[in-house]
Amino acid sequence: VDVQAVRAAAARIEGRVWRTPTLRCPALDALCGAELWLKAENLQRIGAFKARGAMHAVGKLDAAVRARGVVTYSSGNHGQAVALAARDYRVPAFVAMPVDAPPVKLSAVRALGAEVVLAGTTSAERRDEALRLREGTGATIIEPFDQLEIIEGQGTATLELLDDVRAATGGGLDALVVPVGGGGLIAGACLACSGTPTRIWAVEPQGCDAMGQSLARGERVMVPPAPTLADGLKPVQVGELNFAIARERLAGALTVDDAEMGRALVQLLLLAKVLVEPSGAAALAAALRGLDGKPRRVGVILSGGNLEPSLLATLLSTHATTRAGQ
Amino acid sequence: VDVQAVRAAAARIEGRVWRTPTLRCPALDALCGAELWLKAENLQRIGAFKARGAMHAVGKLDAAVRARGVVTYSSGNHGQAVALAARDYRVPAFVAMPVDAPPVKLSAVRALGAEVVLAGTTSAERRDEALRLREGTGATIIEPFDQLEIIEGQGTATLELLDDVRAATGGGLDALVVPVGGGGLIAGACLACSGTPTRIWAVEPQGCDAMGQSLARGERVMVPPAPTLADGLKPVQVGELNFAIARERLAGALTVDDAEMGRALVQLLLLAKVLVEPSGAAALAAALRGLDGKPRRVGVILSGGNLEPSLLATLLSTHATTRAGQ
Repeated sequence: VDVQAVRAAAARIEGRVWRTPTLRCPALDALCGAELWLKAENLQRIGAFKARGAMHAVGKLDAAVRARGVVTYSSGNHGQAVALAARDYRVPAFVAMPVDAPPVKLSAVRALGAEVVLAGTTSAERRDEALRLREGTGATIIEPFDQLEIIEGQGTATLELLDDVRAATGGGLDALVVPVGGGGLIAGACLACSGTPTRIWAVEPQGCDAMGQSLARGERVMVPPAPTLADGLKPVQVGELNFAIARERLAGALTVDDAEMGRALVQLLLLAKVLVEPSGAAALAAALRGLDGKPRRVGVILSGGNLEPSLLATLLSTHATTRAGQ
Repeated sequence: VDVQAVRAAAARIEGRVWRTPTLRCPALDALCGAELWLKAENLQRIGAFKARGAMHAVGKLDAAVRARGVVTYSSGNHGQAVALAARDYRVPAFVAMPVDAPPVKLSAVRALGAEVVLAGTTSAERRDEALRLREGTGATIIEPFDQLEIIEGQGTATLELLDDVRAATGGGLDALVVPVGGGGLIAGACLACSGTPTRIWAVEPQGCDAMGQSLARGERVMVPPAPTLADGLKPVQVGELNFAIARERLAGALTVDDAEMGRALVQLLLLAKVLVEPSGAAALAAALRGLDGKPRRVGVILSGGNLEPSLLATLLSTHATTRAGQ
């Protein structure tokens, strides 16, 4: 039943988001001692997997409800994703963003035709503003991660990965490594992997391990996020629905530090020839450290590719000591 | 008949090289004023389309002949491609390379199991050494570009691109832009586009326009290459067979300078999230300048992605003024 919901989501968003490629890179395989299958969501529309969930959630609304518009709150890629989905469905979008959001992020959301409303600096302030916008406009809230339609939509990335691995090998994945912020991507991965023996690993930045601590405690824990390069992975708490789905299914949670993510980012660039953001390199960083049980065939989700050129330049000068690929 | 030969090549190399993705990037479309279909051969094995032709040429040899080994001469990606094909077919490979080749290129060829023989600094010296190696070993020469099996193999990249465009749109390409060194990739593109109205454009670096000058003169011209960032595009002369195939079919030849290639490389990185080498950015650079006849649907071949991190860092600091993508 779980995987059927993800398949239904895939059917709904087909043609509206891209079927991103699954990449192979023997040079990275050699570094990992495993066969890596890299799901390149950095090549997705808006440069991140977030387009999937938003397109599904907006698409699944009743047409009359959708016509009143959608509203969300975000400091990152989800705002762009909802703006994109609203533009595709030709309905209004409102996005509550922090007053200190980088101008490029504001202009990216506006360029997609959404109305940006600035609201404080915390996620709670943005959510309050979104609720007010809903009252004022009749628009429907599209949650960043704690909503079933979002989870099912994000699960389509894993579904495609599994399909590609099966088509190429006839088999499945021994392990799957997924970066975790609020838990939309990993809860979707859990649904997509229903009925398979794939061991699913959550990866979080050091000091932002809300999922790891929640798994250890058996209930959701608030973790004030520590500074991290992975700005997409710092919600203070994983979603309720996300935790309920993931806690039963995960093999465990791992943390990676900034140096590991920076190194993995540069290796993906120079060896696999794709650009990811630090969050997008987190899963590879964990795989490079070695996974429990020494899985042979490992899925790695490259969640997104949006980063500042200046950060890329810094990471390149710090970590570039190798090149070439096969 | 022409396209059938390319289809046969595709069948022969299937599973031995990768079916690289065709990427879409609305942000680049907007800059170009056209619908771009980017064939990502930077994501190919060894990081360049060269794997296709070499795999086809080596695979098509009679098994008894192949068992004596293969030999080639190269300062770039073709040496790695032949080494890869020989390793896949479990036969010896010999690669004549210049004495001043960068250590990373030598070690990449050696890492694939080939024997590197250093020979002078010019292409003629390397070719002489390859002929000597053939005499000594009974190995078969695999030409870098002037050989039908190589051309047919490189043509499979265009074939896949056309298939992807047809699957997505039901139609074909109005134009196709292809970087030219010796002419293997573009001659293959001409074969693959047989019977279609697609206008095919050759792109060369300024001062290395051997194809452009040859088309203008109606016969092959030697052009001592000027300095260029695009080290893959500086053979002094296009191949005989390559010219014979391309001269009847090309819409024309264009040149781009280092600044245009550098800018296109950084735009591909930040907007399309893929890393290409300067040669690999040449076709986009030409498309960005605007093509004759204002084609709507334009194929762009990203030929490879192997470059030095230090060059990437330099180009990034020179050209990075924008970010984000959709």
